[in-house]
Amino acid sequence: MDIKFTDGGVTAPKGFTANGIHCGIRKSKDKKDLALIFCEKECDTAAVYTQNLVCGAPITVTKNNISDGKARAVVCNSGIANTCNADGIEKAEGMCEITANALGISKSDIIVASTGVIGQPLDLEPVKNGIGELVSGLNKNGSDSAANAIMTTDTVKKEFACEFTLGGKPCHIGAISKGSGMIHPNMATMLAFITTDANISSEMLKTSLLEVVADSFNMLSVDGDTSTNDTVAILASGLCENERITEKNDDYRTFTLALSSICEKLVKLMAKDGEGATKLVECVVTGASDVKTAKTCAKAVICSSLVKAAMFGSDANWGRILCALGYSGVDIDVHRVDVKFSSDGGEIEVCKDGSGIDFSEELAKKVLSCDEVYILVDLKSGASCATAYGCDLTYDYVKINGDYRT
Amino acid sequence: MDIKFTDGGVTAPKGFTANGIHCGIRKSKDKKDLALIFCEKECDTAAVYTQNLVCGAPITVTKNNISDGKARAVVCNSGIANTCNADGIEKAEGMCEITANALGISKSDIIVASTGVIGQPLDLEPVKNGIGELVSGLNKNGSDSAANAIMTTDTVKKEFACEFTLGGKPCHIGAISKGSGMIHPNMATMLAFITTDANISSEMLKTSLLEVVADSFNMLSVDGDTSTNDTVAILASGLCENERITEKNDDYRTFTLALSSICEKLVKLMAKDGEGATKLVECVVTGASDVKTAKTCAKAVICSSLVKAAMFGSDANWGRILCALGYSGVDIDVHRVDVKFSSDGGEIEVCKDGSGIDFSEELAKKVLSCDEVYILVDLKSGASCATAYGCDLTYDYVKINGDYRT
Repeated sequence: MDIKFTDGGVTAPKGFTANGIHCGIRKSKDKKDLALIFCEKECDTAAVYTQNLVCGAPITVTKNNISDGKARAVVCNSGIANTCNADGIEKAEGMCEITANALGISKSDIIVASTGVIGQPLDLEPVKNGIGELVSGLNKNGSDSAANAIMTTDTVKKEFACEFTLGGKPCHIGAISKGSGMIHPNMATMLAFITTDANISSEMLKTSLLEVVADSFNMLSVDGDTSTNDTVAILASGLCENERITEKNDDYRTFTLALSSICEKLVKLMAKDGEGATKLVECVVTGASDVKTAKTCAKAVICSSLVKAAMFGSDANWGRILCALGYSGVDIDVHRVDVKFSSDGGEIEVCKDGSGIDFSEELAKKVLSCDEVYILVDLKSGASCATAYGCDLTYDYVKINGDYRT
Repeated sequence: MDIKFTDGGVTAPKGFTANGIHCGIRKSKDKKDLALIFCEKECDTAAVYTQNLVCGAPITVTKNNISDGKARAVVCNSGIANTCNADGIEKAEGMCEITANALGISKSDIIVASTGVIGQPLDLEPVKNGIGELVSGLNKNGSDSAANAIMTTDTVKKEFACEFTLGGKPCHIGAISKGSGMIHPNMATMLAFITTDANISSEMLKTSLLEVVADSFNMLSVDGDTSTNDTVAILASGLCENERITEKNDDYRTFTLALSSICEKLVKLMAKDGEGATKLVECVVTGASDVKTAKTCAKAVICSSLVKAAMFGSDANWGRILCALGYSGVDIDVHRVDVKFSSDGGEIEVCKDGSGIDFSEELAKKVLSCDEVYILVDLKSGASCATAYGCDLTYDYVKINGDYRT
């Protein structure tokens, strides 16, 4: 199949407009803080959320709103997480009501999300004051401003779109997301909003989303902390007029592949833009006895503070990779493990059969100094593989998180 | 019972001498790299080790040597971990043989340990050349030099001793240990060598050690990385002439309490001297439904990169504590949780029933700016409690680990 990446983000699919403004939840006027995505017709929808027991109030409200598999809009603020507040639910429902009234739709068709500091109250006044501007400014080029409005410590906007065909009909998927700390998703991640004009039932949308999330967002870690507000939501307008997908047929597989390619793009960019990160680090585990083993090993390496710090220093300290594999909790034969580093700077083998081998420190430094580094682990015990996505641990991560609230 | 802390470290108990020298495993002559602890008579012994599948060669050799519950000496080098080397076992046995010959004892009475870089070969020549000086210098004040010789990135020596009575007889426990990165013990931790002149069987020594380790070393985390070489070993000379402990009687409980007090001292000092750390952070969880829940919660908070970075910045970002409790995997009612911070600077409540409350940022800053900070979490769901020990995440942790090998 042919997937073509395009511009346009969440407004690339037919039927969707978007906008993002500064309404005043954040003090700094330079930073947008309220985003809206809207569809001209009712959409099939599905979402996955954080598994954290401490769960943001917007998630509770969203779950309820889309329990019928239908939605028409996403409203999201940054700056305040609206989590661990006694009046959180009330505020999240208030945000839906304000938005629904301005759009002239039912408040149960709204997906609501918040990201920012936990435990500080959300003031609805700025939302009330800004909603008119937000709604009147909805447009086909609005994905950019919406993507900007949901950013917190992110340094780059995360926005992708692609085009493919379903039964001869041109079909689109668009997405925006935000990182960039408290990133260690469990069944879902942070905020990602995806739109499509594919015609697909909410049940199959959910199935497809779960399938894709397992290999993309759930294989991402910036700092091992699973957020309280993770949400990935997808809305399907059906306006590309393909035959409606209601079972796992060829069109379902095509759609899922396209969704997967978009999510992989988001995840790599979120990893690379992890708080303070200077490089994207991918751990590719091959030769595992099963996928679960491969995934656990890949994530253990990506999550190790010591591996991350070594990557920051471009130091080929592969012993820390073996160490992480060893404590990951899976049953592997450590005496079979081979480790290589790879990047645009070249490839270098550093460990064979679980033991160190002579290698050029100079070449290793060159390989590890690139801004996208691959850690290749071969367990030589089977045919399963997995990839985990992360970043290095830097001074700036500490700086950003030593004083996040002020 | 009365426990009096004394000087003398591992040489405080009757029968033990120690020494530490620079033999040349490390390049810098300013840093000692080989330690020896020796007992004039055969000791009962017990040890616990890392659960990492990638396990240092010295551990394999030590397990075999003390399978009879007897030992007379500990030899340990720093600089090289002797792990993930094809000839590791051979080298560890070589180290035992060199030491045994110099001491005139059986090589199966030696506990051998190594700490340092993983995957680099251990050269035995410096050990051969230095062993004469090391053995001839054994003395009753040698604990200090032994404690120095096992240090890696540690900035302070870890050495404690105490005196108590068993059946009227004065009895002693002494210990040395090292941190300070790759610290997240699982059933054991890093290197800690403990001596005692109590008369106690190796079986009861093991029982007591396991009991104590569960609440001390296993509740410590610097960076979430479980080392490949963790070893806690204890040797009992029996020279204090108490009635031999062979069952869980009052003397066993007295001994275990004394051992526990020494291990708690070591663990707090290891946490406070964690790589790059500026402060000791303890999380005390109370009101849990069971001890396992309390321990899991306390460790989740202590291990969170975001909590650790906030502690570095003396930032009362308590939402991250709730977040860590929520993803810890235990079943708690997050709407009951109270959180306070406490230190020599005072005490301040920041979260009540899972929601934020107004508090003085000024007082919070004062409380969190001290060098020993307590995070007090009350789950209000039972009577069980637990404490976990850790430190803050700092620029220096990243600096130390960005280029550890050079």
